[in-house]
Amino acid sequence: MQDHKFSFGLWTVGWQGTDPFGGNTRRAFEPWEYADKLAELGAWGITFHDNDVYDFDADEATAKARVSQLKDAADKAGLVVEMVTTNTFSHPIFKDGGLTSNDRGVRRFGLKKILNAVDIAAEVGATTFVMWGGREGAEYDSSKDYFAAHARYAEGLDTVAGYIKEQGYDLRIGLEPKPNEPRGDILLPTIGHALGLIATLEHGDIVGLNPEVGHEQMANLNFTQGIALALYCDKLFHIDLNGQRGLKYDQDLAFGHGDLMSSFFTVDLLVNGFPASPDAPRYTGPIHFDYKPSRTEGIEGIWDSAKANMETFSLLADRAKSFREDPAVQELMREASIFELTEPTLAEGETVADLRQAEMPDPAAKGEREYRFVELQQAAMRHLLGA
Amino acid sequence: MQDHKFSFGLWTVGWQGTDPFGGNTRRAFEPWEYADKLAELGAWGITFHDNDVYDFDADEATAKARVSQLKDAADKAGLVVEMVTTNTFSHPIFKDGGLTSNDRGVRRFGLKKILNAVDIAAEVGATTFVMWGGREGAEYDSSKDYFAAHARYAEGLDTVAGYIKEQGYDLRIGLEPKPNEPRGDILLPTIGHALGLIATLEHGDIVGLNPEVGHEQMANLNFTQGIALALYCDKLFHIDLNGQRGLKYDQDLAFGHGDLMSSFFTVDLLVNGFPASPDAPRYTGPIHFDYKPSRTEGIEGIWDSAKANMETFSLLADRAKSFREDPAVQELMREASIFELTEPTLAEGETVADLRQAEMPDPAAKGEREYRFVELQQAAMRHLLGA
Amino acid sequence: MQDHKFSFGLWTVGWQGTDPFGGNTRRAFEPWEYADKLAELGAWGITFHDNDVYDFDADEATAKARVSQLKDAADKAGLVVEMVTTNTFSHPIFKDGGLTSNDRGVRRFGLKKILNAVDIAAEVGATTFVMWGGREGAEYDSSKDYFAAHARYAEGLDTVAGYIKEQGYDLRIGLEPKPNEPRGDILLPTIGHALGLIATLEHGDIVGLNPEVGHEQMANLNFTQGIALALYCDKLFHIDLNGQRGLKYDQDLAFGHGDLMSSFFTVDLLVNGFPASPDAPRYTGPIHFDYKPSRTEGIEGIWDSAKANMETFSLLADRAKSFREDPAVQELMREASIFELTEPTLAEGETVADLRQAEMPDPAAKGEREYRFVELQQAAMRHLLGA
Amino acid sequence: MQDHKFSFGLWTVGWQGTDPFGGNTRRAFEPWEYADKLAELGAWGITFHDNDVYDFDADEATAKARVSQLKDAADKAGLVVEMVTTNTFSHPIFKDGGLTSNDRGVRRFGLKKILNAVDIAAEVGATTFVMWGGREGAEYDSSKDYFAAHARYAEGLDTVAGYIKEQGYDLRIGLEPKPNEPRGDILLPTIGHALGLIATLEHGDIVGLNPEVGHEQMANLNFTQGIALALYCDKLFHIDLNGQRGLKYDQDLAFGHGDLMSSFFTVDLLVNGFPASPDAPRYTGPIHFDYKPSRTEGIEGIWDSAKANMETFSLLADRAKSFREDPAVQELMREASIFELTEPTLAEGETVADLRQAEMPDPAAKGEREYRFVELQQAAMRHLLGA
Repeated sequence: MQDHKFSFGLWTVGWQGTDPFGGNTRRAFEPWEYADKLAELGAWGITFHDNDVYDFDADEATAKARVSQLKDAADKAGLVVEMVTTNTFSHPIFKDGGLTSNDRGVRRFGLKKILNAVDIAAEVGATTFVMWGGREGAEYDSSKDYFAAHARYAEGLDTVAGYIKEQGYDLRIGLEPKPNEPRGDILLPTIGHALGLIATLEHGDIVGLNPEVGHEQMANLNFTQGIALALYCDKLFHIDLNGQRGLKYDQDLAFGHGDLMSSFFTVDLLVNGFPASPDAPRYTGPIHFDYKPSRTEGIEGIWDSAKANMETFSLLADRAKSFREDPAVQELMREASIFELTEPTLAEGETVADLRQAEMPDPAAKGEREYRFVELQQAAMRHLLGA
Repeated sequence: MQDHKFSFGLWTVGWQGTDPFGGNTRRAFEPWEYADKLAELGAWGITFHDNDVYDFDADEATAKARVSQLKDAADKAGLVVEMVTTNTFSHPIFKDGGLTSNDRGVRRFGLKKILNAVDIAAEVGATTFVMWGGREGAEYDSSKDYFAAHARYAEGLDTVAGYIKEQGYDLRIGLEPKPNEPRGDILLPTIGHALGLIATLEHGDIVGLNPEVGHEQMANLNFTQGIALALYCDKLFHIDLNGQRGLKYDQDLAFGHGDLMSSFFTVDLLVNGFPASPDAPRYTGPIHFDYKPSRTEGIEGIWDSAKANMETFSLLADRAKSFREDPAVQELMREASIFELTEPTLAEGETVADLRQAEMPDPAAKGEREYRFVELQQAAMRHLLGA
Repeated sequence: MQDHKFSFGLWTVGWQGTDPFGGNTRRAFEPWEYADKLAELGAWGITFHDNDVYDFDADEATAKARVSQLKDAADKAGLVVEMVTTNTFSHPIFKDGGLTSNDRGVRRFGLKKILNAVDIAAEVGATTFVMWGGREGAEYDSSKDYFAAHARYAEGLDTVAGYIKEQGYDLRIGLEPKPNEPRGDILLPTIGHALGLIATLEHGDIVGLNPEVGHEQMANLNFTQGIALALYCDKLFHIDLNGQRGLKYDQDLAFGHGDLMSSFFTVDLLVNGFPASPDAPRYTGPIHFDYKPSRTEGIEGIWDSAKANMETFSLLADRAKSFREDPAVQELMREASIFELTEPTLAEGETVADLRQAEMPDPAAKGEREYRFVELQQAAMRHLLGA
Repeated sequence: MQDHKFSFGLWTVGWQGTDPFGGNTRRAFEPWEYADKLAELGAWGITFHDNDVYDFDADEATAKARVSQLKDAADKAGLVVEMVTTNTFSHPIFKDGGLTSNDRGVRRFGLKKILNAVDIAAEVGATTFVMWGGREGAEYDSSKDYFAAHARYAEGLDTVAGYIKEQGYDLRIGLEPKPNEPRGDILLPTIGHALGLIATLEHGDIVGLNPEVGHEQMANLNFTQGIALALYCDKLFHIDLNGQRGLKYDQDLAFGHGDLMSSFFTVDLLVNGFPASPDAPRYTGPIHFDYKPSRTEGIEGIWDSAKANMETFSLLADRAKSFREDPAVQELMREASIFELTEPTLAEGETVADLRQAEMPDPAAKGEREYRFVELQQAAMRHLLGA
C-alpha cells in the first residue's frame, strides 16, 4: 500500500456505534492506540478533531499533554498528522451552529474554539485545516435570516484564514459541504455552494474544498463531476473517501461499498488525472478516508473495515491504470471525440463574426453520429472487473 | 394581480403533453395566440426559446417574420417580452450537448445558434438571456473529460457575455442549473455550481442565475436557501417558479402544487426580502413561471393551470405580508435571536487576540436556551393557512 | 381539540436531542410527568415502548411498579394508554436485529422481550401493539439470507399474534414499515411490503399496519395513497403522523411541518373517508403523533411542538371539511369523473365476450377530454389556505 | 452466452431516443429485423408490447399479419417469444390510466386492448403476460378516489386472470411496479404494494411480479431484498434487469451500469439462490433486459449496449459462482451466523411458556460479538473484481 498516502480520521476507527436509535456497541481506545494500529495496517497519515483527542471541557494543560502524546506516538509510528479539524457540532451549545448560530455568544465561542484548533493544527504540522459546518443550517426557513447567515459564515472563514496568514502557518482551509444531517438543510450543501461563497471571501486564496463522497451523493450528485469542478477552480485541497447507498442518512460505509462504478472513476481522476487534459490541475493530497466501521462490527471489524478502504482503493487504482493504458480504450475515446473536447470552440483569434461566416456541420448527420459511449463504459466495466 | 410582474414561458402553456411514455394530448396554438390569452389572464410578460416561435430549420426570413408578429402581438396586448432563451437540447445534433459536446462542430453550431438568439433577445427588448444547458452532461463518467467540459462551458459563456457587451445590449445572462434530466448528470447541477463557474469567468459580471424551484429540489436542496446564496452573491438575475414533489422526473407542476411551505418562504423572500437584513440585495425581476399544464388536462386545463400559478403566488404574498407584520411573529423572531445574527461575531476592530481574552458564555446555559423555532414555524403555518 | 383522539408517544416529547453528531440538549422527565403535561395540553391518549418507562435492565418489580405508576397517572389525568410497543433496537444486543438477527440467541431474547411487552399492553388496556423492526435489516446484501430473514420475521409475528389470541387479549398488531435508518435497508420497507408479508401469516387477521408519514416519504412514496391501499386491504390499524422534508435522515418534524399539501389530503382521508366510496373502510383509531421536538428547542419548545401537531391537524380537518362541502368542488369532482371510478368497468354479469362486442369510445375524443384535475387541486389549495 | 436465457424487449433496442426534451436520434427497424439481430448477438428470447409490432390503430388483419411475421422470424432465428405485454400508456386516451382511469369508457377500452394482447401472447407461445400500469396513478391526491382506484385495478386483474384460466392459456401475469413516471405517483409503486393487492384477488394464484431493477431503486429500495420477498411469497414470475443511478428519471441503463455491487447480489440470487436456504423457491425464468440504448448512441450503439447487458450478467454470474465456492467466504458466512438464521427461533414444539423459562444469552456479550459483515462484503468485492 506504499503507493498511496492513505490517511484516516481518528473518529473513523474510533466511532463506537451510537446512532439515533441506539447506543455504543464498541469501547473506545486512546487516540495513540488508534494511531499505532493504523500505522501497523499501512496508513501513511492520521487526522483528528480537537475533541477526538481531549474532552470539550478539558483544561489547557490536559489538552496540550494529550495532543503531545498523540503527536509523539504518530512520529514514532512514522505517521504524518496531515489534517486537523474542530468539533463545533457535538456539544449542545452548538445546537444552532458554530459560526452561524443566531446567538452571537455562541458564535464567539465557536470561533475561538476553531482558532485554538488552528494553533494545534500548525503545532502538529498539519497542512490542511478542515471546516465542516454540520450545525450551520436550519430545519425551518423561518428560523434564519439566510443573508446574515452567509455573511457570518464568510466572516468566520475570513477571520480564520486571516489568522492563518497572519501567523504564517503553512495551512490551507478545506470546507466540507454536506446537504443535511444533522440539520434539516445545511449551509454550503454542495461543492458548488462552497465554491460560490469562497469566491466572495477576502482570504479565499487559502480556502478550498474537502469534499466527501457520501455528502455529494446525499444531494443526488455525481461525486467525480463535482471534484472535477473543484479541480477546474483549483480548489480541491483535500478529500474524504467513503461509501453511501443512495439518499438516506449519512452512511459512511467503507470506500467502494457504496457506488462502485462511481468510486472507480473517482480513483481514476485522483490517480491518473483528467483523461485528455494533461496540464489541468491534479490532486496531490492524501487519500483520506472518512468512514465508519458498521455498528454491527466488533473490535476486529474496526480493523477489517480500515483495511477494506485501502485495499479497494489500491485495487481500483490498478484497474484505472490498466483502463487508461489499453489501446482499445484510447481508440474508443477517440471515437467518442473525448480529446476533441479540449480544443477551444473558437479557433485562436476567431471572432463571433468569423464564426457566423464559417461553414457549419450538417445537423442531421451530427444527430446520427456514433459516440459509442456505452461501449467505452463497458470497456471500463471490463477493466474494473479484471475481465 | 397587478401587484406582481407575472411572466410565462410560451413553452409552458404551449406544452402539448409529450413525455417519455406517450405522445401529445393537446394541439398547439400559434405563439401570438398564447400571448393574447396570457395577457387576458393577467400576465405582465412573456418569454420564449427561439424554437418556440420558429422551427429549428426555418429560414432567416421566416424566423424574423414570426418573431416580429409575436412582438407586435405582445405590444398590442401590453405584454413585456422580458426574457429570451435558446433551444440547444431538442434537436438530435445536441444529443451530447450544445456548448460542451465532445464534437467541436456541434459546439460551433450551438454557439452560433445561441448568439443568434441573443440578437433576437435584444431586438424584442428582453433584459435577461437565459441559458439552460440541459444536454451539457453525461450518463457515463468515461464519456467526458470534465476539465475540458467546464473549460468549454466557460468559453461559451464568456463568448456570449463578451458579445453582449460588445454589442452594448442591455442584457444579462441567467444560468439555469439542473442536476439531471435529460442527461444522467448535468454540468452546473445546482445554484452553487453555477456560482462557482461564474467566479472563473472573464465577463462574469453580467452572468448570474435563473434558478428553478423544481431543479434545486431534484437535488434534494432547499430552494429558498439556494436563492438566498444567489442574492448574497448578488447573482439572482431571474427566477423560474413551479412545483415538484420530491426526487423524481422534472414535474413542472404549477407553483405551490409542490412543497407548499417552501413556496411560502420563497414568496416571502421575493416579496419582503430577508427578515432582518433590510439592506441586503433584493430580487426585483419578474415573477416567471416555468411549469407545465399536466398531460391529463385539455385546453381549458391550460388556462386553469396558468391562473393557478398567479393565484397561489398572490395568496402567498398576502400571507407573507401578514406574517411579517404580526407583532407576535416579531417577538418570536427576537426570542429566536434572528436579528442578532446580523451583528458581526467580532466587534468592530476586535482582533483574534481580543476575542481570546474576552469573556465567553457558559456552554451549558447556551446549550439549554430556548430558540422556539418550532413555535415561530407554527406562527408561519397560521398565517399561511389564514388561521 | 375535543373532536380528535390525539395521542402521543412518550418517546416523542421525551426525546432529549441525541443525534449521530451530538448529545442531549434537554433533560428527561419521568413518564408520568409527560403524561400529566400532555393531558393538560389536550391529548386524549398516550403510548410507550417498554423502555420508555423502565430501563432495559430493570428488575421485574421495578418495571411493574413504574408501569403501574404511569397507568395510575394516566387514569387520573383521563388519558387512554392506547398503544404499547417494544424497544428491540437501542441495546447493542439488537445491533443485527431482534426477530431477524443472524444470532438465534438474540432472536430468542428479542422475542421474549416483545412477549413481555404484549402482557404490559394488555394490562394497561392498550388495543394496539406496534412492532417497528428498526434493526431488522442489513447494510450488506452478503450479510443476510433474505429468505430466512423473512421466514424468521413471519415466525416472530405469528408467535406474537398466536400468543395474543391464546391469551384472549383485545389487541391487534400494527407493523410499522420504514425503508432505512438505522439499518442501511430495513426489511418491510414500505406499507406494501408489510401487506405482502402479512398475507403469508397464519394469524394475519390480527396483524395490520401502523404507517408513519415520514417513513413512506423516505421511500419517495405518496403517504395518502399508501394508507389508502392499507384501508383497501382493511389493514389500517393505527397511524403515526409527523413531518419529513424529502429523502434524508428521519426528521420526525411536527405534523404539517413537512409536505403540507400531502398532510391535508391525509387528514381529509382520515377524517372524511374516501371522496366517492362511502362504504369503504374508514380509519377509526387514534390520531397518533410520532414526532420529535427539534434538538434546538428547550423545554418550552417541547410543549410548543406538541401543541403544533394538534393545532395543525385540527386546522386541516376543518379545511378538509369545507373542501368536501363546497358545491363547486363537488362539481369539479364530477367533471373529473371521480364518482365514475366507483362504477365497475364491466357491467353486472357482463362477460369478456360481451365487452368485446360492446361499442367502444372514440380514442381521439377521449384523449382530448377535460378532467380539470389542476383546477380541482387549486380548489383544494383555496380551502387549505382559507382563501 | 448459452448458459443464461437472455431475452430482450423489442422496445429496448427499438427505442429511438425521444425524451421529454428532444426527439428521435435513431431510425426504427421492423420488429423482425430487431429479432434477427438479437438472435445473432446471442439472445435466447424476445418480448413485446402489442404496439411494438403494430400501430395503435392498425386493423385486425394488419395486426395479425405483423405478429405472424414476427413469430415466423423468431422461430427461424431460434428465438422464444417468452413474454407479451400491452401498451396502455402511449395513446392520449390513456392519459389518466387504462384500468383505473376515472373515465369508465377508457377503462373498458383499456381492458379490451389488454385482453386482445392476452390472446396474442397465447398465440405466440409466451408464458408470461406482463402488466405495467404506467398511467395508473395521479399527480394530485384530489383527482382520485384511491379506494375505487384499487378496486378497479383488482377488477381488471381478476378479469384478465379469469379469462386466462377460462381459455386454458399457459400464461401467468407479472405485475410491474413503478413508483412514478410518467404519473406523479403510480399505483402499485413497489414490489410490496403489488404483493399486497395480489393477496386480495380472486385469481391471485396466477398473478405475480415482474420487478424491474431501476423501478425499485427509484423508490430508494434495495432490489435484491425486494425480489427476495417476492420469492418468499413465491411470486417472482419474471424479471426486468437494467441500470439506474439514483433517484431521478427512469434511466433504463444497461444492466450493471447502475449500482454494480447491487447487481452482483441480484445475479448471485438469480443464479445461485439464497445462500443458506437451498430449499427456498428459485427463479427459473428468463434473464430479461428492459433497458434503453442511450440517446447519444447511433445504430452501432444499439448493438454495443445489447451485448453489454449480456456480457455483464455473464461476468457477474461467474464471479458470484466463485464467491459462493470460496471456502474463506463460507467460513466468514459461518462467523456471521448466516446459516444460523435458517434455524427457527423457537425449537420444534417449544411454547411461549417454554421460551420464558429458557436460559437467555448475556446481552452485553451479544452486544459485543463479532459478525464481520464488512469483511464478508469485502470478500464479495474481491470476487466481484476478480482480485
